[in-house]
Amino acid sequence: MAGAPTLAVDGMGGDRAPGAIVDGLEIAAERHPEMRFLLVGDSARLKPLLAHHHRAAASAVLRHASEVISDDMKPTAALRLRNASMRLAIDAVASGEAGGVISAGNTGALLALSKIVIKTLPGIDRPAMAAIGPSERGDVIMLDLGANVTCDVRNLIEFAVMGDVFARTVLGLPAPTIGLLNVGSEELKGGEQLREAAEILKESPLGQQFHGFVEGYDIAAGTTDVIVTDGFTGNVALKTGEGALKLVRGLLRQVFESSLSARLGYLLARPALDRLREWLDPGRYNGAVMLGLNGVVVKSHGGTDAEGFAHALDVAMDMLLHGFNEGISAGLARMGTIEPPGGRKAADGGQPLAPAI
Amino acid sequence: MAGAPTLAVDGMGGDRAPGAIVDGLEIAAERHPEMRFLLVGDSARLKPLLAHHHRAAASAVLRHASEVISDDMKPTAALRLRNASMRLAIDAVASGEAGGVISAGNTGALLALSKIVIKTLPGIDRPAMAAIGPSERGDVIMLDLGANVTCDVRNLIEFAVMGDVFARTVLGLPAPTIGLLNVGSEELKGGEQLREAAEILKESPLGQQFHGFVEGYDIAAGTTDVIVTDGFTGNVALKTGEGALKLVRGLLRQVFESSLSARLGYLLARPALDRLREWLDPGRYNGAVMLGLNGVVVKSHGGTDAEGFAHALDVAMDMLLHGFNEGISAGLARMGTIEPPGGRKAADGGQPLAPAI
Repeated sequence: MAGAPTLAVDGMGGDRAPGAIVDGLEIAAERHPEMRFLLVGDSARLKPLLAHHHRAAASAVLRHASEVISDDMKPTAALRLRNASMRLAIDAVASGEAGGVISAGNTGALLALSKIVIKTLPGIDRPAMAAIGPSERGDVIMLDLGANVTCDVRNLIEFAVMGDVFARTVLGLPAPTIGLLNVGSEELKGGEQLREAAEILKESPLGQQFHGFVEGYDIAAGTTDVIVTDGFTGNVALKTGEGALKLVRGLLRQVFESSLSARLGYLLARPALDRLREWLDPGRYNGAVMLGLNGVVVKSHGGTDAEGFAHALDVAMDMLLHGFNEGISAGLARMGTIEPPGGRKAADGGQPLAPAI
Repeated sequence: MAGAPTLAVDGMGGDRAPGAIVDGLEIAAERHPEMRFLLVGDSARLKPLLAHHHRAAASAVLRHASEVISDDMKPTAALRLRNASMRLAIDAVASGEAGGVISAGNTGALLALSKIVIKTLPGIDRPAMAAIGPSERGDVIMLDLGANVTCDVRNLIEFAVMGDVFARTVLGLPAPTIGLLNVGSEELKGGEQLREAAEILKESPLGQQFHGFVEGYDIAAGTTDVIVTDGFTGNVALKTGEGALKLVRGLLRQVFESSLSARLGYLLARPALDRLREWLDPGRYNGAVMLGLNGVVVKSHGGTDAEGFAHALDVAMDMLLHGFNEGISAGLARMGTIEPPGGRKAADGGQPLAPAI
């Protein structure tokens, strides 16, 4: 790897690629002149774009890729495209040429290829997808968002460790609070696995930050900085929340178009409404992150514009510049060996969270 | 049971009981003069209230209950209060005196007592909680919302049957569409159980109405009229969506208070904004329903006002007046015997959905 932190960028992924990708790169290069980019894709299309983007051109090295992984391609098929832009960008992380990769392309392919090519961090059983979203009290991180349909206790603990480091690295919080997502009624509380994970977290070095169980309401309320859950529940919660916000945005549009006085009202309240829209803007929260791999992997929304892609680039750069993966290793080491719940000392038992070697 | 359909009302459940309960009863009694109510609670408090609510007084019979199940009481403790208002109201359903019960009190106690005292409908393995919520295309029903933390294939199929009948009965839809909640990415789709349930529904008499898998987005989008999921996921999704809507309501309040011109804008857009608020009003969707018991069981929000309680009463009355439980039995009979997936004819195998007796 060169001296400067380098991010491999899939230039061909996403509905508006490569235009929005290079536009976003231009914005990000201005914000972080210390970063280097490896821009991978069809050079016949990327070269002319770079000619008009001087900052991106100054920070990026172009690498030609003859193939593109389409959005509807199955990961198994994508695996065979050795010269796809996404694949070559991922390869650059595996070889150590880049510290991370970002793509707005096919999510399933990015997850599968990253897991296979970049591989899991020592000590991590299963990588997780995380994202940042809005809440009443500021930004909230949730994971897993769908990388693992089923999770065991160890996975949930690892998600807590990774969520903690992610919140420190990207949100800059010194001691993020952590909640374990569960259902409401006392009598109906989630299964044995959630109780066990809660017991372990309570007794762990993360115990001071661990808030205990949280419910669906707590996500938007911002009760904790990090919400830990299995990939099935997290995926449903994320999309349910996004769907609810989209519903209200649509309804507000109707409200302000419903009469002349409502339109006038919109004009008067517009500066504040624009701030609200910006605040809830999906682009501002663009960028789901694959945590737990031997490199930073960021997935931008496929439909993103340049500004949204630049936000995703920010997240990737923050993780690279602030040593996210080093933080994970340190976090796992701090956790040491998980004690089985019930207080028995894990002299010979327990499950090592830190790498055995 | 008397000739007229009768609903037992817990007069003491909820933060604003008994005032809001009797106020709500007054509204409901006006809407449905054909209904009869059995109002259960402290007669020293209820009698003076009824004196000022002539319609409620004309439709209701008062029954004294010397005890109240508090909100923080565990169901096991609640079970011992034989003279609690909630208990006596539930007893009236078990004895056949009333066709259903409604309470704004302790949810866990209502669920547990109803299951034990009223018991499950023949052919139903597990009762489910359902609620109605807003979407882009109209009202949406989701179940289970937390009565069952884990569910098997049979439970999901039964939820689909009950959701179908609930949508016909309460929303008046002739052929409601049904979706099975799952996660997005093709490669990561939910487990064997969801695939199996989808296979069975596709081949069942509900096949024409079955839309297949839906995602979190689809709830607020209104892609299907009924969303079927396990109680853990449904509880998280419901509360996440409610949390997101609450977040936006709070932000809009801030927007319109942020400047003089924004305040003026609010006044101009107010009629349309009030319609929006009313449309998203949690009170309008007040009333979670316990489906699959030998009687109608409706839970109103604890914090409900009179109008919200009247909405919950509407749901209970619709279910009673339109024969909800008879619909469930007919729906189960239509489903017949579940064939194991894979096409093998269930000559001797398969799992009976209809009551064996």
